[in-house]
Amino acid sequence: MNQVIETILNHRSIRKFEDRALSEEQIEMIVQCAQAASTSSFIQAYSIIGIKSPDKKKRLAEIAGNQAYVESNGHLFIFCADLHRHEVIAEMEDQDLTTSLQSTEKFMVGLIDATLAAQNAVLAAESMGLGACYIGGIRNDLEAVCDLLHIPKRVIPLFAVVVGYPEQQPDKKPRLPLHHVYHEDAYQQNSETYKSQLQAYDKTISAYYEERTNGKRNDTWSAQMANMLKSPKRMYMKEFVEKKGFGLE
Amino acid sequence: MNQVIETILNHRSIRKFEDRALSEEQIEMIVQCAQAASTSSFIQAYSIIGIKSPDKKKRLAEIAGNQAYVESNGHLFIFCADLHRHEVIAEMEDQDLTTSLQSTEKFMVGLIDATLAAQNAVLAAESMGLGACYIGGIRNDLEAVCDLLHIPKRVIPLFAVVVGYPEQQPDKKPRLPLHHVYHEDAYQQNSETYKSQLQAYDKTISAYYEERTNGKRNDTWSAQMANMLKSPKRMYMKEFVEKKGFGLE
Repeated sequence: MNQVIETILNHRSIRKFEDRALSEEQIEMIVQCAQAASTSSFIQAYSIIGIKSPDKKKRLAEIAGNQAYVESNGHLFIFCADLHRHEVIAEMEDQDLTTSLQSTEKFMVGLIDATLAAQNAVLAAESMGLGACYIGGIRNDLEAVCDLLHIPKRVIPLFAVVVGYPEQQPDKKPRLPLHHVYHEDAYQQNSETYKSQLQAYDKTISAYYEERTNGKRNDTWSAQMANMLKSPKRMYMKEFVEKKGFGLE
Repeated sequence: MNQVIETILNHRSIRKFEDRALSEEQIEMIVQCAQAASTSSFIQAYSIIGIKSPDKKKRLAEIAGNQAYVESNGHLFIFCADLHRHEVIAEMEDQDLTTSLQSTEKFMVGLIDATLAAQNAVLAAESMGLGACYIGGIRNDLEAVCDLLHIPKRVIPLFAVVVGYPEQQPDKKPRLPLHHVYHEDAYQQNSETYKSQLQAYDKTISAYYEERTNGKRNDTWSAQMANMLKSPKRMYMKEFVEKKGFGLE
């Protein structure tokens, strides 16, 4: 097993960090690695905002649901889908690009581009002995995030990534069975097989929690997902995304 | 520089492969690495379809715009945002999860989850000495892709990844200036600075093409982007995404 695969398989989300900031060199290397990712037709439809201001970190932690590690970490990155750059190009090149820029296709491209870059950043950080955690919680209130960071139209913050020197080593949670996630030549058509894979995984997860909580918790993955999804979250998102100029047609 | 950062920075899209299939062990290791990526609230909202059937590869190559390397490679993966699994859970747990599943928030989560997994897969492959290329071209006709691979509702194929033993070593194209993509504490507010960064990059890209084509090509990045975006592409996407049960509210 090479170091890349080792780093990938050794991943766990780190939520507790030493009080020690990343160096400029570390930050630049992480961003450079993010930029080395593939990008759809060379469009480079993303931006990254690094947060150093303690006040802004504090406010972002509040928005994310008072998660302490959003405030206390070595550095905080915000990954954004970004077509603002291309709107500036429309002006510079005197072309009307609006239909393209507000299409659902380009909304997807922005999300994919930003996320490819982010995963490179996380692996680069982990390879340096740092820990990281994705923070979807900033999507609790993207209007507030955009105000705080002066984010223009056609830019959507998608998630934060906190990075730092780890002060914990949590367990890795077992993933869905490989042959449930990975299909060959067609999506699994046998619904009994599909359900039995889910049930087998439910047992794995239930046993995982039971062992780690001395029997206090033994919920299945299915129950956990149903419980989470029965209360719809962030239902302002469609309106917000459209207001930002994405996915309008 | 460690092996992870080296692999990341050494990335280029490979579009010509030896006639040599990946082994089962390689495929499983790549999928296992994909699954090790972070996932939003443990939702695991993606699936991967591996294509071995030569007929299906041929058809996917046609859909992607007759790209030969979609047909001829060591293996072809299709990465999909997947909430079908969670709809099955709704039935198993006797809960109505519809509002959540068809929300724009969960559409974004599915895209992000699938893309994090894909980038792990690509880096794992590259670390094994394989080459890879993302294929957005399958989005030319996702209805046809879904028919071909029997993909159910609440699953959207996002892109393919072709992997194989490389038969080329293309140049790396220079990326946007680091401080154009990476902002600190707020999005760049000075539009003159912003534009001058784009203009500097335009010179870099123009010189890059000029050198590699003996002066036959010297277009800027801005011109290239304007030219690409002035013809809107895949404008069926919004209707398709909604028909698949995503982003409806």
